[in-house]
Amino acid sequence: MKNTFDAIFEQAQDAFLSYKHLSGKKKAGFLNEIANGLERIKTKLIPLASSESNLPEGRITGELGRTVGQIRLFEKLIEEGSWVEATIDDGNPKRTPAPKPDIRRMLFPLGPVVVFGASNFPLAFSTAGGDTISALAAGCPVIYKAHPAHPKTSKLVAEVIKEALSVSSLPEGIFIHVEGGIPEGQELVKHPTAKAVAFTGSYYGGMALFELASQREEPIPVYAEMGSVNPVFAFKNKLEIELDNLARSYAASLTLGAGQFCTNPGLIFIPETYAKQFSQAVQSELNEVVEAPMLHEGIAKSYYAALDQFQQRQELDWIKVSEKKDLINSQPAMAKIKAKDWLKDKKFQEEVFGPFALMVVYNDEHELFQIAKKLHGQLTISIWAEEKELQDKLNLISLLEEKCGRLLFKGVPTGVEVGHAMHHGGPFPSTTDSRSTSVGSYAIKRFARPISFQDMPQSLIPEALADSNPLGIWRMVNGEIKK
Amino acid sequence: MKNTFDAIFEQAQDAFLSYKHLSGKKKAGFLNEIANGLERIKTKLIPLASSESNLPEGRITGELGRTVGQIRLFEKLIEEGSWVEATIDDGNPKRTPAPKPDIRRMLFPLGPVVVFGASNFPLAFSTAGGDTISALAAGCPVIYKAHPAHPKTSKLVAEVIKEALSVSSLPEGIFIHVEGGIPEGQELVKHPTAKAVAFTGSYYGGMALFELASQREEPIPVYAEMGSVNPVFAFKNKLEIELDNLARSYAASLTLGAGQFCTNPGLIFIPETYAKQFSQAVQSELNEVVEAPMLHEGIAKSYYAALDQFQQRQELDWIKVSEKKDLINSQPAMAKIKAKDWLKDKKFQEEVFGPFALMVVYNDEHELFQIAKKLHGQLTISIWAEEKELQDKLNLISLLEEKCGRLLFKGVPTGVEVGHAMHHGGPFPSTTDSRSTSVGSYAIKRFARPISFQDMPQSLIPEALADSNPLGIWRMVNGEIKK
Repeated sequence: MKNTFDAIFEQAQDAFLSYKHLSGKKKAGFLNEIANGLERIKTKLIPLASSESNLPEGRITGELGRTVGQIRLFEKLIEEGSWVEATIDDGNPKRTPAPKPDIRRMLFPLGPVVVFGASNFPLAFSTAGGDTISALAAGCPVIYKAHPAHPKTSKLVAEVIKEALSVSSLPEGIFIHVEGGIPEGQELVKHPTAKAVAFTGSYYGGMALFELASQREEPIPVYAEMGSVNPVFAFKNKLEIELDNLARSYAASLTLGAGQFCTNPGLIFIPETYAKQFSQAVQSELNEVVEAPMLHEGIAKSYYAALDQFQQRQELDWIKVSEKKDLINSQPAMAKIKAKDWLKDKKFQEEVFGPFALMVVYNDEHELFQIAKKLHGQLTISIWAEEKELQDKLNLISLLEEKCGRLLFKGVPTGVEVGHAMHHGGPFPSTTDSRSTSVGSYAIKRFARPISFQDMPQSLIPEALADSNPLGIWRMVNGEIKK
Repeated sequence: MKNTFDAIFEQAQDAFLSYKHLSGKKKAGFLNEIANGLERIKTKLIPLASSESNLPEGRITGELGRTVGQIRLFEKLIEEGSWVEATIDDGNPKRTPAPKPDIRRMLFPLGPVVVFGASNFPLAFSTAGGDTISALAAGCPVIYKAHPAHPKTSKLVAEVIKEALSVSSLPEGIFIHVEGGIPEGQELVKHPTAKAVAFTGSYYGGMALFELASQREEPIPVYAEMGSVNPVFAFKNKLEIELDNLARSYAASLTLGAGQFCTNPGLIFIPETYAKQFSQAVQSELNEVVEAPMLHEGIAKSYYAALDQFQQRQELDWIKVSEKKDLINSQPAMAKIKAKDWLKDKKFQEEVFGPFALMVVYNDEHELFQIAKKLHGQLTISIWAEEKELQDKLNLISLLEEKCGRLLFKGVPTGVEVGHAMHHGGPFPSTTDSRSTSVGSYAIKRFARPISFQDMPQSLIPEALADSNPLGIWRMVNGEIKK
């Protein structure tokens, strides 16, 4: 069967066979060129990305900083080199009844991978975003499918990556920029040479790719980060002390970037005693928020369609309604529902992409346990409680752990910190693979698999596994971690 | 929807919520009880497993040793505790523009998992085998589906595990033994509480489970170790020096346990110059092999059916034919084919479960590259070459790396060493997940996912992440590996 992308994948596969053996230092040099290149063009890039995404320049400036920061993180990680999990079990030719072989294991890149750009992060989750960079860092060529919402930004960043390849004397097949819509995306995922897929976007988009990838002759992993309503659980003592502060930071997090962050806190659980006071406080904050343009008209349309649906529901009391004034701007909206009603329909758990929140009013601990059991998988869950107040909530916390990838005990889930300890993933349906993260240094592991070498001569062995440890990396040798 | 196994999964889920927080030391104590229990009943267990599997007592004695050894490996791993990948990024409340949160990440168990027993390893890949033990070590309750080929052995081992739970004062829901056939297995995989599946067996069995698991409302990972023909690539200089030795060890590996090992070397590539001499040497070895009973009649039947199919093929020259004398015994068989014919039909890559080998005669390096490109994913590939001879084969080795999980430079692939560095997995179709291993300590990672805690009070934090490192484990703290 012919596939439109045969030539592209052949080029990527050829590049892979040399790129996979490139040293960590040289790969780091290539990433460094990308980061420098992005900084070099920032006066052109920021206004362009801003105009294509409707996100303010200040926000894009921050996102560029984060994007460059991510690249530097992976640059350091692969320059240092321990991420490959080098593991050595020495042999023993004298062992009886059979000699013990020498076995050495390390991570190798999977091969060419397909990365989809996200509309809500034209830089940090797009062309040179975390998925592309972690795959390149692992040693995988990337076939990048640009998001149609910001084509010029994507092309400009792709040129930076191509220039970095050229300066580093690396083959062009290591990064290939593809434009197109859904049919092109599907063909990329179906191509037999593709070894993994990374995606950030809607539940329906992610699941469509997951199903395609599972039905291939050779199934491949899909790392899809999909919807999440990022519940906040608020408790009495905390609300008693700082209700106004919490309402303020909640409203700010909900409306940040017009509510278009993956970690937008669209669901909040408030005890009955404080329901009125909290809703009034949030309401007055939301009334201050000026309307903001969404990423594109399609997203604004979906936002208002979802609100319309909710407005039909008798169970909801509206704290703040959003008037639709035009085709692009959104206003925040918030409604209140009783826990017993919320529990009856899983529709109330679905993400509304945009600045909409559902406030669920609960009566007691018993209701909270029912909620925790019914809750779908989430990227994050936030717990607002006083430290003392938490001591009798250990069973509830244990249940909530099962429902998320990150558990916060302070603050709001937006503003994902890029570092080693960040896990940006979570149980289904927030992602298709709860074992993986799309932010932070562990993201590199998504694109690697182990290979063991048995009795391989030292003259051939990869440096990471050589007796003398020439890379000076951390390794597990006969069960002990050492350098 | 009702499922026959609702009560079982409810019990497992209840057990999970306490078991997941059990300390590594206590879990290790439980595993230790299992290992001791198996050793205690060995005089009863060995003859029973031998009679149910048709494998000789010597082989079962070895397998019991390996099974106990595996348990001890995981016991040590979780007692030591560093496997959880504890990662800490300290916060900084003074950072501008926004304070830096404190983020701490570690691995947690997935939840209840379903493990399928394998027919060819009634102990090491069955009830208390590597899949069950690595899942229990991770903190996951196991719903174990016994293999119908050795029901009494399975029940006896299950009693040992139940006794170990009781002695350790742990809930019964941590290990549940289920009997049944294909419909029961399917219901287990479809149960919404199941979080992962481990399986060792045929391609068709593994893929059936993989498809079921991918089509669930919540898709879950399936770690299926399926077929592999474990190719051996032999080169001139090596054959020149030790052809007879190689033929002897090859024939022994091929017929070990009646050829019923996952790593059975069913495919061998020999240069034209040595084809005649090697086939004669293997033939005289195979002629000495006495017929051996297979695991059960169904397997013997499939073996002969596969041989019958191959006997229709004009492209094959038979080195050794196998006469079918009865319903259970197998004799080794071997046929020869030219590389150009082998390349034309992927049928020649399919595993024949039993002591059958296909010897592919190649003419030159060009043919070897074509072979390497067409080769399906394998658990192992063996390269028989002199060290000097390898220096001009680096590109070929690089291609072969892409096709296997373990690359051997000496010996034969049977006799899988259980240790930290062993990778027993491989690209599709040898497994459904090339990132995972079913042997060795990394097998534990299949049953875990990361959770990050943000700004969690020290009074609540898991010990592995506490400031004082009370477990004394290796952690990554602000990017540095330390204790």
